[in-house]
Amino acid sequence: MSFEKNIRTVVPYTPGEQPQRRVIKLNTNESPYAPSPKVAEVLHSFDADSLRRYPQPDCHVLTEALAAYHHVEEDQVFVGVGSDDVLSMCFLTFFAGEKPILFPDITYSFYEVWAAVYRIPFIKVPLTDQFELRPEDYRRENGGIVFANPNAPTGKAMSLTGVEQIIKENPDSVVIVDEAYVDFGGESALPLISRYDNLLVTRTMSKARALAGMRIGYALGSKKLIRYLNDVKFSVNSYTMNAPSLAVGVASLEDERYFRETTAKTIATREWTKEQLKKLGFFFPDSQTNFIFASRPGTSAERLFEQLKQRDIYVRYFRQPVLDQYLRITIGTQQEMETLIRELETLLKKNF
Amino acid sequence: MSFEKNIRTVVPYTPGEQPQRRVIKLNTNESPYAPSPKVAEVLHSFDADSLRRYPQPDCHVLTEALAAYHHVEEDQVFVGVGSDDVLSMCFLTFFAGEKPILFPDITYSFYEVWAAVYRIPFIKVPLTDQFELRPEDYRRENGGIVFANPNAPTGKAMSLTGVEQIIKENPDSVVIVDEAYVDFGGESALPLISRYDNLLVTRTMSKARALAGMRIGYALGSKKLIRYLNDVKFSVNSYTMNAPSLAVGVASLEDERYFRETTAKTIATREWTKEQLKKLGFFFPDSQTNFIFASRPGTSAERLFEQLKQRDIYVRYFRQPVLDQYLRITIGTQQEMETLIRELETLLKKNF
Repeated sequence: MSFEKNIRTVVPYTPGEQPQRRVIKLNTNESPYAPSPKVAEVLHSFDADSLRRYPQPDCHVLTEALAAYHHVEEDQVFVGVGSDDVLSMCFLTFFAGEKPILFPDITYSFYEVWAAVYRIPFIKVPLTDQFELRPEDYRRENGGIVFANPNAPTGKAMSLTGVEQIIKENPDSVVIVDEAYVDFGGESALPLISRYDNLLVTRTMSKARALAGMRIGYALGSKKLIRYLNDVKFSVNSYTMNAPSLAVGVASLEDERYFRETTAKTIATREWTKEQLKKLGFFFPDSQTNFIFASRPGTSAERLFEQLKQRDIYVRYFRQPVLDQYLRITIGTQQEMETLIRELETLLKKNF
Repeated sequence: MSFEKNIRTVVPYTPGEQPQRRVIKLNTNESPYAPSPKVAEVLHSFDADSLRRYPQPDCHVLTEALAAYHHVEEDQVFVGVGSDDVLSMCFLTFFAGEKPILFPDITYSFYEVWAAVYRIPFIKVPLTDQFELRPEDYRRENGGIVFANPNAPTGKAMSLTGVEQIIKENPDSVVIVDEAYVDFGGESALPLISRYDNLLVTRTMSKARALAGMRIGYALGSKKLIRYLNDVKFSVNSYTMNAPSLAVGVASLEDERYFRETTAKTIATREWTKEQLKKLGFFFPDSQTNFIFASRPGTSAERLFEQLKQRDIYVRYFRQPVLDQYLRITIGTQQEMETLIRELETLLKKNF
């Protein structure tokens, strides 16, 4: 059929497996804790009759709450269907030039997919052998810059000085700092948005706020950037956020204590897990996220991945050069991580 | 700032007003009835703890229910965040060629906005003076075709014979039939999807199913088209539908009796309203939707729009040539329409 010549053919992003059985699921960086009890309250008392109406197109109730939470103006906030929706919209909006955009060679693999679907030229800038991003490598002609800080799947964070250097040295580019994991460590670039018009910071409620199933992400930046982003958003879908997601997002922000407590638990378990993995001979960049990107010299990561899966422990394995030496292990509950460590001990004794 | 040269500048779609006060709201084609009581049940018993997990990326629970409902295979179904999200994804996927796509000059104004944001060349094909779409006008070189049936904002439906003629005469183009309003009348093109690989039909739960606030739309077509659409969707956002929206969509489909009853009520009220408007001297295309596109010779539609607004009755007015002679009036409850007619009577006696 010749209508296929008009079709945009792409190689999509592959999300992690979502097994239907009950397993120890450490493969998609979800929270092991439930969202705030306030989320359940909001859903269970939701006025279902109101669903006959369109939701607020400007998502006012949520942008207002986010602005108050982050001490910015409401027109410095943009919300979307998870930070993937926000980032996708950013690629479409800010990377519409001719010059290639820049992002690290090892990072969130969706960047390359968005560049492909929107036909954006790009250059992947190599990290160092230690998975470090060198700001000076971004001192070159470009049509935009995007990087994750802390980075994924490495878990490594860059200093705010380094982040600021990139933003400052590229005044002619929009610089997007993807802070999906910043709640678990690292320094946020948020204090810089008042000083740099070209900076946009993206966040998600999917990780530390345990709302992956609700799809809530957002961006913070200069009013100018947010206005351009909204123009494109309103050219794609006037109503991206459904009414329950707006209410749930607000409820989560209202429960700061719960957010801090569960995040602290994940961080404590992460630090414990680091010690145990070291003892078992694993190496890994020092993670500031809710996952650890671990490798063990002389041990096949792929085989370990398969063996763990047989024991109903799912971690993430990437079948590509360099990454295929590693497992990306999400931090679960303390008990789940103890089980993981026990199973690893047994496996490493017996099979490797 | 020179980073602006890389920014995609667009003129976005303008959705209808969403007044916060209690008014008679006949301006955005929402349902005057609540969604099925099963929707409230599902929300109020939703397992909020499960929100820590990502939702099903393939939206299986909902595509399965839709496939059963429409008697097609599951891989002939695509779901999205309202039919706007579905249509936007269709424009991005199927209209990636060099030749201009075709759509009517008077139709859903978002088509032109999507064409602009995705840089798709287009030709607007004039309707007849009677707002009729002539299939033979689409017998010309093109990179794709999209039209609404019944059409908006005219409310007019085209026969299935006409629809089939367009699909058959354009085997080298993907033809999208936007059936947002088909639940209220008109003939669906669904029976044709098994025979034409190039046909895609889009639907929404926002209107007859009273779920505008939940953002659920879908497309039905050949497996080949659905596969291409999914490839692009998974290149934009792996998880577009949040977990509650999947559950709510299924719940709505399970309550066929409620759906039929409320739709029948809207249709009955529409027919009553047509009679009343005729008596008041209005002309309008014979609507098969949940709105009436009405004009009254010698009466300023704009002034009527403003006067009704002052009386807390919101209808939709489009400030553009031809359309500015009309008001698009959504069908509310019988009581709301009786109030509207009464106010119109008073206004027309006094001020015009």
